[in-house]
Amino acid sequence: MKAEPVPVIAVGLCGLGTVGQGVLKHLQRARGDLEARLGVRLVVRRAAVRSLRKVRGVRLPAARLTTDALAIARDPAIDIVCELIGGTTVARQVTLAALARGKIVVSANKALICAHGAEIFAAARRHGGHFLFEASVAGGIPIIKALREGLVANRFPRIFGILNGTCNYILSEMAARGTPYARVLAEAKRLGYAEADESLDVQGWDTAHKAAVLAWLAHGVWVRPEQMIVEGIERVAPADFANAAALGYGIKLLAIIERDYARGELSVRVHPTLVPAGSVMATVAGALNAVSVTGDVVGTTLYIGRGAGQDATASAVIGDLADAALLLRQGAGARLMSERLAPAGECRPAPLRHIRCRYYVRLTVVDRPGVLARVASAMARSKVSIATVIQHAAERPGAASLVLTTHESDEQSLRSTLQAIGRLESVLEQPLLLRIGDFADRR
Amino acid sequence: MKAEPVPVIAVGLCGLGTVGQGVLKHLQRARGDLEARLGVRLVVRRAAVRSLRKVRGVRLPAARLTTDALAIARDPAIDIVCELIGGTTVARQVTLAALARGKIVVSANKALICAHGAEIFAAARRHGGHFLFEASVAGGIPIIKALREGLVANRFPRIFGILNGTCNYILSEMAARGTPYARVLAEAKRLGYAEADESLDVQGWDTAHKAAVLAWLAHGVWVRPEQMIVEGIERVAPADFANAAALGYGIKLLAIIERDYARGELSVRVHPTLVPAGSVMATVAGALNAVSVTGDVVGTTLYIGRGAGQDATASAVIGDLADAALLLRQGAGARLMSERLAPAGECRPAPLRHIRCRYYVRLTVVDRPGVLARVASAMARSKVSIATVIQHAAERPGAASLVLTTHESDEQSLRSTLQAIGRLESVLEQPLLLRIGDFADRR
Repeated sequence: MKAEPVPVIAVGLCGLGTVGQGVLKHLQRARGDLEARLGVRLVVRRAAVRSLRKVRGVRLPAARLTTDALAIARDPAIDIVCELIGGTTVARQVTLAALARGKIVVSANKALICAHGAEIFAAARRHGGHFLFEASVAGGIPIIKALREGLVANRFPRIFGILNGTCNYILSEMAARGTPYARVLAEAKRLGYAEADESLDVQGWDTAHKAAVLAWLAHGVWVRPEQMIVEGIERVAPADFANAAALGYGIKLLAIIERDYARGELSVRVHPTLVPAGSVMATVAGALNAVSVTGDVVGTTLYIGRGAGQDATASAVIGDLADAALLLRQGAGARLMSERLAPAGECRPAPLRHIRCRYYVRLTVVDRPGVLARVASAMARSKVSIATVIQHAAERPGAASLVLTTHESDEQSLRSTLQAIGRLESVLEQPLLLRIGDFADRR
Repeated sequence: MKAEPVPVIAVGLCGLGTVGQGVLKHLQRARGDLEARLGVRLVVRRAAVRSLRKVRGVRLPAARLTTDALAIARDPAIDIVCELIGGTTVARQVTLAALARGKIVVSANKALICAHGAEIFAAARRHGGHFLFEASVAGGIPIIKALREGLVANRFPRIFGILNGTCNYILSEMAARGTPYARVLAEAKRLGYAEADESLDVQGWDTAHKAAVLAWLAHGVWVRPEQMIVEGIERVAPADFANAAALGYGIKLLAIIERDYARGELSVRVHPTLVPAGSVMATVAGALNAVSVTGDVVGTTLYIGRGAGQDATASAVIGDLADAALLLRQGAGARLMSERLAPAGECRPAPLRHIRCRYYVRLTVVDRPGVLARVASAMARSKVSIATVIQHAAERPGAASLVLTTHESDEQSLRSTLQAIGRLESVLEQPLLLRIGDFADRR
C-alpha cells in the first residue's frame, strides 16, 4: 500500500515573542500527533520578527524570517496567518490584509478584537476568510469553543469570572499574607507576574477587553469598555481582606456579564467583588483564570485553568490552527459552528438602577460621636439599607474605619449615597466601594 | 430580498424518557436561535417510545410516535438518530443500523460505548456515518469537545474527576452531616438522586464506563472496566470523613486516568480518594461532576457542572445535534475534528507496582497491647512505610479503630500488606483501603 502524501498547510507567524515561540515549539514537538489527527501537516513557512538579529530559543531557518508582517499577510503561499504581534495598529493591518485575501487569521489579541471586532468579523464574512481567537480569553481554557459549540442550546443569563492572572495573583498574595498592594505589586513585577506598566491589568481594562469578547460571543453585541462599569484593584487594602473574611468572603476581581432576557437588557462590569468563602471561585488562587457560565438549559458550568503564559496560550492557538486546518480541508464555504452567533434580540445596556447587588462600603471617618448616625442618615435618604456595620481604629491617628454592608440595592442608589457621604466633613477619604457577589455560590 | 427556504434536518428520537423529553422540549424552545446559528432547521420527525399510551409532558403528534426504534434507524427520511434508550441491546442494534446507512448517531449511552465502542466507531468509519457522544460523560460539561478539539495540542499525563453525581451526593451528605452510608443512600433514593438499584453507581461501574470513554478519547485505546481497579463507596464510614478531615482531606469517588508516556503505560482506576481539603476538587459538592485535565502544553484545566439530569444532558445532546447539522450541511466526507484520535503509541496497562500513591488504611482491631506492633511489622515486611497513625475506640466493644497512612507506595505492595494484615488474628474486619490523591492540588 503506497502512502498518500500528506497535504501541507502553510502557517505564517506574525510575532515571534513569548507566545509565537511557544506556538512554534509545540507545533514542532506535536507534529506527529497533529498530522495523525488532522490528516494535514501544519508547517510554519514564514515568521515576522521585530529584529532579525535577536537570538531566540526556537529553530527556524533565517531565510524564513522577515521584519515585514504585512508581507506575510499578503503572501499567496500562506494559508493561515497567526497574529501574535499585540497592539491595535500593525496587528489590525495584518489581520485585515489577510482576511481581504480570504485567509484564516488566528489571534490572541483581545485588545484588537475589543476595539475593531465589528470591522474584523465583517471583513472575514465579506471575503470568505475566518477569524479565530480562542487564545484571546482565559488562555488555555477552551471557553470560546464551549460557549459557541458545546453550549449552543443555551441562552446565558450570567457569565462571570476571573480573567486576569496578574490581578488574581496580587489579590491572592494580599489575602494570604496581609501584605499591602504596593508591595505585592513590586514583587509581582520582579517575578514576572506583572508587566512593567501594570495599569492595563490592575485598573481592570484587560479584564474589560476579555469581558467584551465573551459578551459578544454570548449575546452578539459589542460593548465597549467605556460603556461598562470598570474598577480596578489599586484601592483594595489588607484591611478589606480581613473585613471580608469576617463577613465570610474573599475578594476577587470579577468580570460579570448579565443579561435580563425579559427586559432585553445587558450589563457588563469589572470590579473587585466579595465572593463567598466556600465557593469554588474563592479557591481559584494565584495566576489562574476561571469562568462561570450559567446557561438556561445546562445550569452553571465552571472552567478553570492558566489564563496566560507561553504554553497555555500556545495550546489555545494550536487548537485554532487545527480548526483552521479542518476548514481548509473542507474547502470554500466551510465554516465552524463558532463563526455564527445567536441573534442579539433585544439587548440594550441595562440602566444603573437595574444593576443590583449587595455592597460593601469602607469609610475613613473622624473618630468622634455622631459620625455613624450621619453616615446612616445619608444612606437612608438614598434608600440604601444597612445590613452590617464593623467599626475599628484606622491607621490614621484620630480616625476610625467604618465598614458597612448593605442589603440588596442598585448602582444608581449607591452613587447617590457615596456622593452624599463624600460631602460629610467627618468623612476623611474617598469611600471604597466593593460589590458583594452572592451569586458566586449558586450553581 | 426574498428569504431562501431554510433546509430542514430530520431527527429521530429513539427513547422519549427523561432525557428524550428534555431534548424535544429544548429543541422546540430554542428553535429560533438554533436556526439562526446553524442555518438549518432541526425537526424531530419521529420518536420511538415503549408505550404509545403513556401521557408525556411534551407535544409531539401521535402520528410521529412508534414503538419500533429500529424502524427509525432504518428510515431513509431520518438524517440524525438520537439514541436515548439506554442499555446495550436495542441501543446497539439501533446504533449499528443507523450507522450502516451512513446516518449520524447522537448518544448519551456510556455503557454502550464502553461495551461496544470499537465496533461502533468501526461501523461509523466503514459506512461514512458519524457517532457523537458528548452527553455520555459529565452531562452538560463539554468535556469531550475540550479534550479532542480545544486541547488538541496536548498529550494527557493525567485526567481525573468526579463523574458520578449519585456517589458525590452521598459522600457530600455523609461528610456534612456525619450520617452513615445506608441512611444517606435511602434518602438519596427518596429524593431521586439514586436509582432503585443503586449498584451500578455506588460500586463505581458507572464511573468506570465514563473513565473508559475519557481514556479512549485521550489515548486511543479501549480499557475495559474489568481491567481497571474499581472500588465503590459502600464501605466508607462517617469515621473515615472525620479521620480524613483530621489529616486535612475530604473524600471523593474519583476516576483517575494516568499515562506514563516514557514507560508507555496507562492506568485507569476508580476508587474513593482522599483529596486535599483546600483543593477545588474538594469543594465540588452534591450532584455535580468535575473533570481535571492535565495537558503537557496547557497545564491543568478543570471543568465543573451538573453531570446528569434532563436539562444538562439535553444541552449536551443538542450540542451534538448542532455539530451533526454542520456535518450534514458540508456533505459527504466532512468530519469533525473530534472524530479522529491521536495515535495510541505505546500504551500498555501499567503493572500494579507502577501505580503509586499514598494510602489510608482503617483497621478494626482487638483493643489490647501489641496489636499496633504486629500491624506495623506486617507493613514493614511488605516495605510499606507508615506516615501517620490515629487510634481511637471503635463502635464495637473491646475493639479499637486503627487508621494508618503510608508514605508513597504502590498497589502491589499494598495488596501484599493487606493480605498479611488480614491474616493477623487481632484484626477483626476486612481492612478498608483508601487512596490519597495529593495530586488533586497540583495545578
